[in-house]
Amino acid sequence: MDVTFVSTNRGKFREVADLLAPYGVNVRWSRRALPELQADRLETVARAKLAAVPASLPRVLVEDSGLFLDGLGGFPGVYSAPIHALWGFGPILELLARRPRGAAFRTVAALRWGRTTRLFHGEVRGRIARRPRGHHGFGFDPIFIPEGESRTFAQMTAEEKDAISHRGQALRRAGAWMRGRTGSAGPA
Amino acid sequence: MDVTFVSTNRGKFREVADLLAPYGVNVRWSRRALPELQADRLETVARAKLAAVPASLPRVLVEDSGLFLDGLGGFPGVYSAPIHALWGFGPILELLARRPRGAAFRTVAALRWGRTTRLFHGEVRGRIARRPRGHHGFGFDPIFIPEGESRTFAQMTAEEKDAISHRGQALRRAGAWMRGRTGSAGPA
Repeated sequence: MDVTFVSTNRGKFREVADLLAPYGVNVRWSRRALPELQADRLETVARAKLAAVPASLPRVLVEDSGLFLDGLGGFPGVYSAPIHALWGFGPILELLARRPRGAAFRTVAALRWGRTTRLFHGEVRGRIARRPRGHHGFGFDPIFIPEGESRTFAQMTAEEKDAISHRGQALRRAGAWMRGRTGSAGPA
Repeated sequence: MDVTFVSTNRGKFREVADLLAPYGVNVRWSRRALPELQADRLETVARAKLAAVPASLPRVLVEDSGLFLDGLGGFPGVYSAPIHALWGFGPILELLARRPRGAAFRTVAALRWGRTTRLFHGEVRGRIARRPRGHHGFGFDPIFIPEGESRTFAQMTAEEKDAISHRGQALRRAGAWMRGRTGSAGPA
């Protein structure tokens, strides 16, 4: 079965396509830019993005993810992408020099499946590194060390990151749900 | 003549009503919450807000304003309201301890006047104070010192701030335009 993933972010598309393949879901990529709301919650942003995709596409997946820093009231959160584009890592590492370094990466994936809309969540806790390390992934991956690890997301292979990441969790849930709608076999 | 100003911010409504009164414009307040986009430019946010107001309102004014810090790549800019709500002033003052303190407050007011849409701009340059001072106004007013002044916006009366502020400039331009549409006399 096919689903269209709408995002301008090539790194996200690659992760989503890899994550859904074991569920028999073939992911098409639409690079359409969707409006992103200013909102407190990823859920609100993801729902609004989905609502902006023309109804002529019956099976659509969008997602919104963010890095939520304990020491900065959840900043950058829903604003992670624009803040990373504006600042890179510098000001965040400065601010955390005197603050708790705990953090969470969160994803909300929003799926339109015919007349049904479903949200799927994922979260991974961790801490912020003292300096960026690694070159895999994208966004804030080089400064995020997931719990139980010493490496950042950017020092892991795509497979290692997918196995534990916020996006991995949300997309596996979405994949299992889609598989359940079609009665086909489980993940390979 | 009447125009409906749509905003959840009481402080903005008061300023807008005061600023437009001399042009013979009576401002009604709609506290409807409008969607605010994540975007680089105030113009984009203001246009999207205006587009979200039902067409049954023929004369509508919205605005979007932000504080753009030279030393932080224009941050918080379009995100000024949520960043102020999340942080207050602390992290921004920390980051500016080792950065240039120049800044600009900018407003884009978007007016729907029948079938016409017009944007009006205002900007005031200044610098960021070492600590918050004053209790007038709202948002980042306590840390913004306009050029040629030693006081922050929050240490000025509403009249003093309106005379030089970003919002004052944009709204006087809007008021003059509206007055020109009706052929009535100039500001009192």
